[in-house]
Amino acid sequence: MSPIELNKRQDTILQIVKENGPITGEQIAERLNLTRATLRPDLAILTMAGFLDARPRVGYFYSGKKTMTTVTESMMNLKVKDFQSLPVVVSENMTVYDAIVHMFLEDVGTLFVVDENTMLQGVLSRKDLLRTSIGSQDLNTIPVHIIMTRMPNIVYCKKTDSLIVAAKKLIERQVDSLPVVHETDKGLEIVGRLTKTNITKAFISLAETHDL
Amino acid sequence: MSPIELNKRQDTILQIVKENGPITGEQIAERLNLTRATLRPDLAILTMAGFLDARPRVGYFYSGKKTMTTVTESMMNLKVKDFQSLPVVVSENMTVYDAIVHMFLEDVGTLFVVDENTMLQGVLSRKDLLRTSIGSQDLNTIPVHIIMTRMPNIVYCKKTDSLIVAAKKLIERQVDSLPVVHETDKGLEIVGRLTKTNITKAFISLAETHDL
Repeated sequence: MSPIELNKRQDTILQIVKENGPITGEQIAERLNLTRATLRPDLAILTMAGFLDARPRVGYFYSGKKTMTTVTESMMNLKVKDFQSLPVVVSENMTVYDAIVHMFLEDVGTLFVVDENTMLQGVLSRKDLLRTSIGSQDLNTIPVHIIMTRMPNIVYCKKTDSLIVAAKKLIERQVDSLPVVHETDKGLEIVGRLTKTNITKAFISLAETHDL
Repeated sequence: MSPIELNKRQDTILQIVKENGPITGEQIAERLNLTRATLRPDLAILTMAGFLDARPRVGYFYSGKKTMTTVTESMMNLKVKDFQSLPVVVSENMTVYDAIVHMFLEDVGTLFVVDENTMLQGVLSRKDLLRTSIGSQDLNTIPVHIIMTRMPNIVYCKKTDSLIVAAKKLIERQVDSLPVVHETDKGLEIVGRLTKTNITKAFISLAETHDL
Protein backbone atom coordinates (compact mmCIF):
# COMPACT_ATOMS: atom_id res chain seq x y z
CA MET A 1 0.00 0.00 0.00
CA SER A 2 1.35 3.38 -0.94
CA PRO A 3 0.79 6.29 1.42
CA ILE A 4 -1.80 8.68 0.01
CA GLU A 5 -1.99 11.91 1.91
CA LEU A 6 -3.48 14.84 0.05
CA ASN A 7 -4.32 18.07 1.74
CA LYS A 8 -7.92 18.41 2.86
CA ARG A 9 -9.10 20.48 -0.08
CA GLN A 10 -7.47 18.14 -2.61
CA ASP A 11 -9.19 15.24 -0.91
CA THR A 12 -12.57 16.95 -1.15
CA ILE A 13 -12.01 17.77 -4.83
CA LEU A 14 -11.13 14.15 -5.51
CA GLN A 15 -14.39 13.03 -3.86
CA ILE A 16 -16.45 15.50 -5.86
CA VAL A 17 -14.88 14.38 -9.14
CA LYS A 18 -15.27 10.69 -8.26
CA GLU A 19 -18.97 11.18 -7.66
CA ASN A 20 -19.77 13.74 -10.35
CA GLY A 21 -17.12 13.54 -13.06
CA PRO A 22 -16.79 14.65 -15.77
CA ILE A 23 -17.19 18.01 -14.09
CA THR A 24 -15.70 21.40 -14.98
CA GLY A 25 -13.36 23.44 -12.77
CA GLU A 26 -16.07 26.10 -12.48
CA GLN A 27 -18.59 23.55 -11.22
CA ILE A 28 -16.14 22.19 -8.65
CA ALA A 29 -15.41 25.73 -7.50
CA GLU A 30 -19.13 26.43 -7.14
CA ARG A 31 -19.67 23.38 -4.97
CA LEU A 32 -16.82 24.44 -2.69
CA ASN A 33 -17.89 28.07 -2.66
CA LEU A 34 -14.43 29.07 -3.87
CA THR A 35 -13.16 30.83 -6.98
CA ARG A 36 -11.75 28.91 -9.94
CA ALA A 37 -8.45 30.73 -9.39
CA THR A 38 -8.17 29.46 -5.82
CA LEU A 39 -8.62 25.87 -6.97
CA ARG A 40 -6.17 26.05 -9.88
CA PRO A 41 -3.06 24.88 -7.97
CA ASP A 42 -4.94 21.94 -6.43
CA LEU A 43 -6.37 20.84 -9.77
CA ALA A 44 -2.93 21.15 -11.39
CA ILE A 45 -1.33 19.03 -8.69
CA LEU A 46 -4.06 16.39 -8.76
CA THR A 47 -3.81 16.15 -12.54
CA MET A 48 -0.02 16.06 -12.43
CA ALA A 49 -0.11 13.35 -9.78
CA GLY A 50 -2.32 11.27 -12.04
CA PHE A 51 -5.41 11.24 -9.82
CA LEU A 52 -7.46 13.27 -12.27
CA ASP A 53 -7.58 13.52 -16.03
CA ALA A 54 -8.67 16.70 -17.74
CA ARG A 55 -10.22 16.95 -21.19
CA PRO A 56 -10.86 20.36 -22.84
CA ARG A 57 -14.54 21.34 -22.98
CA VAL A 58 -15.47 18.19 -21.01
CA GLY A 59 -13.93 18.64 -17.59
CA TYR A 60 -12.16 16.61 -14.96
CA PHE A 61 -12.73 12.93 -14.36
CA TYR A 62 -11.25 10.41 -11.96
CA SER A 63 -8.49 8.39 -13.56
CA GLY A 64 -7.95 5.79 -10.92
CA LYS A 65 -4.26 6.06 -10.20
CA LYS A 66 -2.14 5.69 -13.32
CA THR A 67 1.32 4.30 -13.59
CA MET A 68 3.80 6.67 -12.09
CA THR A 69 5.42 8.99 -14.58
CA THR A 70 8.80 10.46 -13.79
CA VAL A 71 8.76 13.49 -11.55
CA THR A 72 10.30 15.71 -14.18
CA GLU A 73 7.78 14.71 -16.77
CA SER A 74 5.05 15.57 -14.29
CA MET A 75 6.69 18.78 -13.12
CA MET A 76 6.98 19.87 -16.75
CA ASN A 77 3.20 19.78 -16.91
CA LEU A 78 2.86 22.42 -14.21
CA LYS A 79 1.97 25.65 -16.01
CA VAL A 80 2.44 29.31 -15.13
CA LYS A 81 -1.33 29.94 -15.29
CA ASP A 82 -1.94 27.48 -12.44
CA PHE A 83 0.26 29.38 -10.01
CA GLN A 84 0.34 33.03 -11.16
CA SER A 85 -0.94 35.99 -9.11
CA LEU A 86 -2.88 39.06 -10.16
CA PRO A 87 -0.77 41.83 -11.74
CA VAL A 88 -0.65 45.33 -10.28
CA VAL A 89 -0.19 48.06 -12.88
CA VAL A 90 0.53 51.80 -12.81
CA SER A 91 0.70 54.42 -15.57
CA GLU A 92 3.92 55.81 -17.02
CA ASN A 93 3.41 59.26 -15.58
CA MET A 94 2.80 58.25 -11.99
CA THR A 95 5.46 59.78 -9.71
CA VAL A 96 8.02 57.56 -8.00
CA TYR A 97 6.61 58.63 -4.62
CA ASP A 98 3.09 57.57 -5.58
CA ALA A 99 4.43 54.30 -7.02
CA ILE A 100 6.11 53.47 -3.70
CA VAL A 101 2.89 54.21 -1.81
CA HIS A 102 0.95 52.11 -4.33
CA MET A 103 3.39 49.23 -3.85
CA PHE A 104 2.79 49.29 -0.09
CA LEU A 105 -0.98 49.56 -0.45
CA GLU A 106 -1.09 46.61 -2.85
CA ASP A 107 1.55 44.73 -0.86
CA VAL A 108 3.53 43.54 -3.90
CA GLY A 109 7.24 43.61 -4.70
CA THR A 110 6.90 44.58 -8.36
CA LEU A 111 4.70 47.00 -10.31
CA PHE A 112 4.13 46.79 -14.06
CA VAL A 113 3.97 50.06 -16.00
CA VAL A 114 1.45 50.37 -18.84
CA ASP A 115 0.75 52.89 -21.60
CA GLU A 116 -2.65 54.43 -22.43
CA ASN A 117 -3.65 51.19 -24.22
CA THR A 118 -2.78 49.23 -21.05
CA MET A 119 0.11 47.54 -22.87
CA LEU A 120 3.29 46.63 -20.95
CA GLN A 121 5.93 49.37 -21.11
CA GLY A 122 8.03 48.79 -18.04
CA VAL A 123 8.74 47.02 -14.77
CA LEU A 124 9.45 48.61 -11.38
CA SER A 125 10.99 46.52 -8.62
CA ARG A 126 11.38 47.38 -4.94
CA LYS A 127 15.09 47.58 -5.71
CA ASP A 128 14.55 50.21 -8.47
CA LEU A 129 12.42 52.30 -6.13
CA LEU A 130 14.85 51.99 -3.21
CA ARG A 131 17.77 53.02 -5.45
CA THR A 132 15.89 56.13 -6.57
CA SER A 133 14.75 56.98 -3.07
CA ILE A 134 18.31 57.48 -1.82
CA GLY A 135 19.20 59.66 -4.80
CA SER A 136 19.11 63.44 -4.68
CA GLN A 137 16.01 63.89 -6.81
CA ASP A 138 12.57 64.81 -5.50
CA LEU A 139 10.46 61.63 -5.59
CA ASN A 140 7.35 63.76 -6.08
CA THR A 141 8.51 65.06 -9.44
CA ILE A 142 10.16 62.08 -11.17
CA PRO A 143 7.73 59.98 -13.23
CA VAL A 144 8.26 56.22 -13.09
CA HIS A 145 9.05 55.94 -16.81
CA ILE A 146 12.41 57.58 -16.07
CA ILE A 147 13.56 54.78 -13.77
CA MET A 148 11.66 51.67 -14.94
CA THR A 149 13.18 48.73 -16.79
CA ARG A 150 12.04 48.89 -20.44
CA MET A 151 11.85 46.54 -23.40
CA PRO A 152 13.92 44.76 -24.63
CA ASN A 153 15.24 44.30 -21.08
CA ILE A 154 11.98 43.03 -19.58
CA VAL A 155 11.91 39.29 -18.93
CA TYR A 156 8.39 37.91 -19.27
CA CYS A 157 6.51 34.64 -19.69
CA LYS A 158 3.19 33.37 -21.02
CA LYS A 159 0.46 31.64 -19.07
CA THR A 160 0.92 28.35 -20.92
CA ASP A 161 4.68 28.27 -20.26
CA SER A 162 6.04 25.51 -18.05
CA LEU A 163 6.49 26.67 -14.45
CA ILE A 164 10.02 25.22 -14.46
CA VAL A 165 11.02 27.31 -17.48
CA ALA A 166 9.61 30.43 -15.82
CA ALA A 167 11.45 29.56 -12.56
CA LYS A 168 14.71 29.33 -14.51
CA LYS A 169 14.09 32.78 -16.02
CA LEU A 170 13.61 34.23 -12.52
CA ILE A 171 16.95 32.77 -11.40
CA GLU A 172 19.01 33.35 -14.54
CA ARG A 173 17.85 36.92 -15.06
CA GLN A 174 17.93 37.67 -11.33
CA VAL A 175 14.46 39.17 -11.05
CA ASP A 176 11.81 38.67 -8.37
CA SER A 177 8.84 38.70 -10.69
CA LEU A 178 7.84 38.11 -14.32
CA PRO A 179 4.89 39.75 -16.06
CA VAL A 180 2.67 37.05 -17.57
CA VAL A 181 1.72 38.44 -20.97
CA HIS A 182 -0.50 37.80 -23.94
CA GLU A 183 0.91 38.96 -27.28
CA THR A 184 -1.46 41.18 -29.27
CA ASP A 185 -1.12 43.46 -32.33
CA LYS A 186 -0.92 46.47 -30.05
CA GLY A 187 1.78 45.03 -27.81
CA LEU A 188 2.04 42.89 -24.71
CA GLU A 189 -1.12 42.69 -22.66
CA ILE A 190 -0.47 41.87 -18.98
CA VAL A 191 -2.54 38.97 -17.70
CA GLY A 192 -0.65 37.95 -14.57
CA ARG A 193 2.39 38.15 -12.32
CA LEU A 194 4.69 35.24 -11.51
CA THR A 195 6.97 35.59 -8.49
CA LYS A 196 9.40 33.55 -6.42
CA THR A 197 6.58 33.40 -3.87
CA ASN A 198 4.46 31.53 -6.42
CA ILE A 199 7.32 29.09 -7.06
CA THR A 200 7.84 28.60 -3.32
CA LYS A 201 4.12 27.78 -2.99
CA ALA A 202 4.38 25.30 -5.87
CA PHE A 203 7.35 23.65 -4.12
CA ILE A 204 5.25 23.26 -0.96
CA SER A 205 2.25 21.91 -2.96
CA LEU A 206 4.50 19.27 -4.51
CA ALA A 207 5.50 18.04 -1.09
CA GLU A 208 1.94 18.09 0.20
CA THR A 209 0.71 15.79 -2.54
CA HIS A 210 2.33 12.80 -0.90
CA ASP A 211 1.68 10.09 -3.38
CA LEU A 212 3.01 11.51 -6.66
CA MET B 1 14.22 1.37 -18.98
CA SER B 2 13.71 4.51 -16.97
CA PRO B 3 14.99 7.81 -18.33
CA ILE B 4 17.99 8.99 -16.35
CA GLU B 5 18.99 12.51 -17.14
CA LEU B 6 21.06 14.26 -14.53
CA ASN B 7 22.67 17.58 -15.12
CA LYS B 8 26.29 17.43 -16.22
CA ARG B 9 27.81 18.10 -12.82
CA GLN B 10 25.60 15.54 -11.11
CA ASP B 11 26.65 13.03 -13.74
CA THR B 12 30.32 13.72 -13.09
CA ILE B 13 29.85 13.42 -9.33
CA LEU B 14 28.11 10.07 -9.83
CA GLN B 15 31.07 8.82 -11.89
CA ILE B 16 33.58 9.97 -9.28
CA VAL B 17 31.68 8.24 -6.47
CA LYS B 18 31.21 5.06 -8.51
CA GLU B 19 34.96 4.82 -9.10
CA ASN B 20 36.23 6.11 -5.75
CA GLY B 21 33.53 5.68 -3.11
CA PRO B 22 33.33 5.88 -0.20
CA ILE B 23 34.57 9.41 -0.71
CA THR B 24 33.89 12.59 1.29
CA GLY B 25 32.20 15.69 -0.05
CA GLU B 26 35.46 17.60 0.42
CA GLN B 27 37.35 15.08 -1.70
CA ILE B 28 34.75 15.25 -4.46
CA ALA B 29 34.91 19.04 -4.37
CA GLU B 30 38.71 18.93 -4.63
CA ARG B 31 38.62 16.72 -7.70
CA LEU B 32 36.17 19.09 -9.40
CA ASN B 33 38.05 22.16 -8.27
CA LEU B 34 34.90 23.50 -6.66
CA THR B 35 33.97 24.39 -3.09
CA ARG B 36 32.03 22.01 -0.87
CA ALA B 37 29.27 24.63 -0.66
CA THR B 38 28.83 24.68 -4.44
CA LEU B 39 28.37 20.92 -4.53
CA ARG B 40 25.92 20.72 -1.63
CA PRO B 41 22.69 20.99 -3.67
CA ASP B 42 23.89 18.36 -6.17
CA LEU B 43 24.89 15.95 -3.42
CA ALA B 44 21.57 16.49 -1.65
CA ILE B 45 19.62 15.81 -4.82
CA LEU B 46 21.66 12.71 -5.72
CA THR B 47 21.21 11.35 -2.21
CA MET B 48 17.52 12.16 -2.19
CA ALA B 49 17.06 10.53 -5.58
CA GLY B 50 18.63 7.39 -4.20
CA PHE B 51 21.72 7.34 -6.45
CA LEU B 52 24.08 7.94 -3.56
CA ASP B 53 24.14 6.92 0.06
CA ALA B 54 25.86 9.05 2.65
CA ARG B 55 27.29 7.80 5.93
CA PRO B 56 28.66 10.23 8.56
CA ARG B 57 32.46 10.22 8.85
CA VAL B 58 32.71 7.76 5.93
CA GLY B 59 31.43 9.64 2.94
CA TYR B 60 29.34 9.03 -0.14
CA PHE B 61 29.06 5.72 -1.92
CA TYR B 62 27.13 4.53 -4.94
CA SER B 63 23.90 2.81 -3.96
CA GLY B 64 22.85 1.45 -7.28
CA LYS B 65 19.34 2.74 -7.67
CA LYS B 66 17.15 1.90 -4.74
CA THR B 67 13.45 1.31 -4.75
CA MET B 68 11.65 4.52 -5.34
CA THR B 69 10.49 6.28 -2.21
CA THR B 70 7.60 8.71 -2.40
CA VAL B 71 8.46 12.19 -3.55
CA THR B 72 7.35 13.73 -0.28
CA GLU B 73 9.45 11.38 1.74
CA SER B 74 12.42 12.34 -0.41
CA MET B 75 11.63 16.03 -0.38
CA MET B 76 11.44 15.89 3.41
CA ASN B 77 15.09 14.85 3.36
CA LEU B 78 16.16 18.08 1.67
CA LYS B 79 17.73 20.24 4.39
CA VAL B 80 18.16 23.99 4.77
CA LYS B 81 21.96 23.61 4.96
CA ASP B 82 22.09 22.16 1.45
CA PHE B 83 20.50 25.21 -0.14
CA GLN B 84 21.24 28.18 2.13
CA SER B 85 23.25 31.27 1.12
CA LEU B 86 25.82 33.27 3.03
CA PRO B 87 24.37 35.78 5.50
CA VAL B 88 25.14 39.50 5.25
CA VAL B 89 25.23 41.26 8.62
CA VAL B 90 25.44 44.88 9.80
CA SER B 91 25.78 46.41 13.26
CA GLU B 92 22.92 47.97 15.23
CA ASN B 93 24.31 51.49 14.97
CA MET B 94 24.78 51.59 11.20
CA THR B 95 22.64 54.37 9.68
CA VAL B 96 19.70 53.48 7.44
CA TYR B 97 21.45 55.23 4.54
CA ASP B 98 24.58 53.12 4.95
CA ALA B 99 22.47 49.97 5.29
CA ILE B 100 20.75 50.68 1.96
CA VAL B 101 24.13 51.22 0.28
CA HIS B 102 25.42 48.02 1.90
CA MET B 103 22.39 46.10 0.62
CA PHE B 104 23.14 47.25 -2.94
CA LEU B 105 26.86 46.48 -2.67
CA GLU B 106 26.18 42.97 -1.38
CA ASP B 107 23.23 42.53 -3.75
CA VAL B 108 20.91 40.93 -1.19
CA GLY B 109 17.29 41.61 -0.26
CA THR B 110 17.71 41.21 3.51
CA LEU B 111 20.34 42.28 6.05
CA PHE B 112 20.71 40.75 9.50
CA VAL B 113 21.56 43.06 12.38
CA VAL B 114 23.96 41.81 15.07
CA ASP B 115 25.13 43.07 18.47
CA GLU B 116 28.75 43.40 19.63
CA ASN B 117 28.90 39.62 20.21
CA THR B 118 27.72 39.07 16.60
CA MET B 119 24.44 37.61 17.89
CA LEU B 120 21.21 38.15 15.93
CA GLN B 121 19.30 41.24 17.07
CA GLY B 122 17.24 42.20 14.06
CA VAL B 123 16.25 41.80 10.43
CA LEU B 124 16.06 44.53 7.77
CA SER B 125 14.17 43.89 4.56
CA ARG B 126 14.13 45.98 1.39
CA LYS B 127 10.55 46.78 2.33
CA ASP B 128 11.60 48.15 5.76
CA LEU B 129 14.25 50.34 4.15
CA LEU B 130 11.93 51.57 1.40
CA ARG B 131 9.26 52.49 3.96
CA THR B 132 11.77 54.52 5.95
CA SER B 133 13.23 56.17 2.87
CA ILE B 134 9.94 57.90 2.00
CA GLY B 135 9.47 59.12 5.57
CA SER B 136 10.45 62.57 6.71
CA GLN B 137 13.50 61.53 8.74
CA ASP B 138 17.11 62.01 7.65
CA LEU B 139 18.41 58.58 6.60
CA ASN B 140 21.91 59.63 7.62
CA THR B 141 20.97 60.01 11.27
CA ILE B 142 18.57 57.10 11.99
CA PRO B 143 20.36 53.92 13.16
CA VAL B 144 18.96 50.66 11.82
CA HIS B 145 17.98 49.39 15.28
CA ILE B 146 15.13 51.93 15.25
CA ILE B 147 13.45 50.38 12.21
CA MET B 148 14.51 46.72 12.24
CA THR B 149 12.28 43.77 13.09
CA ARG B 150 13.30 42.45 16.53
CA MET B 151 12.81 39.29 18.57
CA PRO B 152 10.31 37.78 19.23
CA ASN B 153 9.06 38.80 15.77
CA ILE B 154 11.98 37.36 13.82
CA VAL B 155 11.18 34.13 11.97
CA TYR B 156 14.26 31.91 11.71
CA CYS B 157 15.29 28.34 10.95
CA LYS B 158 18.15 25.96 11.70
CA LYS B 159 20.46 24.37 9.17
CA THR B 160 19.18 20.86 9.87
CA ASP B 161 15.53 21.90 9.36
CA SER B 162 13.64 20.42 6.44
CA LEU B 163 13.62 22.75 3.43
CA ILE B 164 9.85 22.26 3.11
CA VAL B 165 9.25 23.43 6.66
CA ALA B 166 11.42 26.49 6.06
CA ALA B 167 9.58 27.19 2.79
CA LYS B 168 6.29 27.12 4.68
CA LYS B 169 7.65 29.63 7.19
CA LEU B 170 8.59 31.99 4.34
CA ILE B 171 5.05 31.81 2.96
CA GLU B 172 3.06 31.81 6.19
CA ARG B 173 5.02 34.63 7.80
CA GLN B 174 5.25 36.57 4.52
CA VAL B 175 8.99 37.20 4.60
CA ASP B 176 11.55 37.00 1.81
CA SER B 177 14.35 35.55 3.88
CA LEU B 178 15.04 33.59 7.08
CA PRO B 179 18.21 33.83 9.13
CA VAL B 180 19.67 30.34 9.59
CA VAL B 181 20.78 30.28 13.22
CA HIS B 182 22.67 28.21 15.73
CA GLU B 183 21.45 28.51 19.33
CA THR B 184 24.21 29.33 21.85
CA ASP B 185 24.30 30.50 25.46
CA LYS B 186 24.89 34.04 24.30
CA GLY B 187 22.02 34.10 21.83
CA LEU B 188 21.38 33.19 18.20
CA GLU B 189 24.50 32.94 16.07
CA ILE B 190 23.80 33.54 12.36
CA VAL B 191 25.19 30.81 10.12
CA GLY B 192 23.22 31.36 6.91
CA ARG B 193 20.41 32.99 4.98
CA LEU B 194 17.52 31.12 3.37
CA THR B 195 15.50 32.98 0.72
CA LYS B 196 12.75 32.35 -1.81
CA THR B 197 15.55 32.38 -4.38
CA ASN B 198 17.07 29.33 -2.65
CA ILE B 199 13.68 27.57 -2.73
CA THR B 200 13.21 28.45 -6.41
CA LYS B 201 16.64 26.93 -7.14
CA ALA B 202 15.69 23.77 -5.22
CA PHE B 203 12.50 23.54 -7.29
CA ILE B 204 14.56 23.71 -10.49
CA SER B 205 17.07 21.13 -9.17
CA LEU B 206 14.21 18.73 -8.46
CA ALA B 207 13.07 18.95 -12.06
CA GLU B 208 16.59 18.54 -13.40
CA THR B 209 17.10 15.28 -11.58
CA HIS B 210 14.92 13.44 -14.02
CA ASP B 211 14.77 10.00 -12.55
CA LEU B 212 13.67 10.53 -8.98
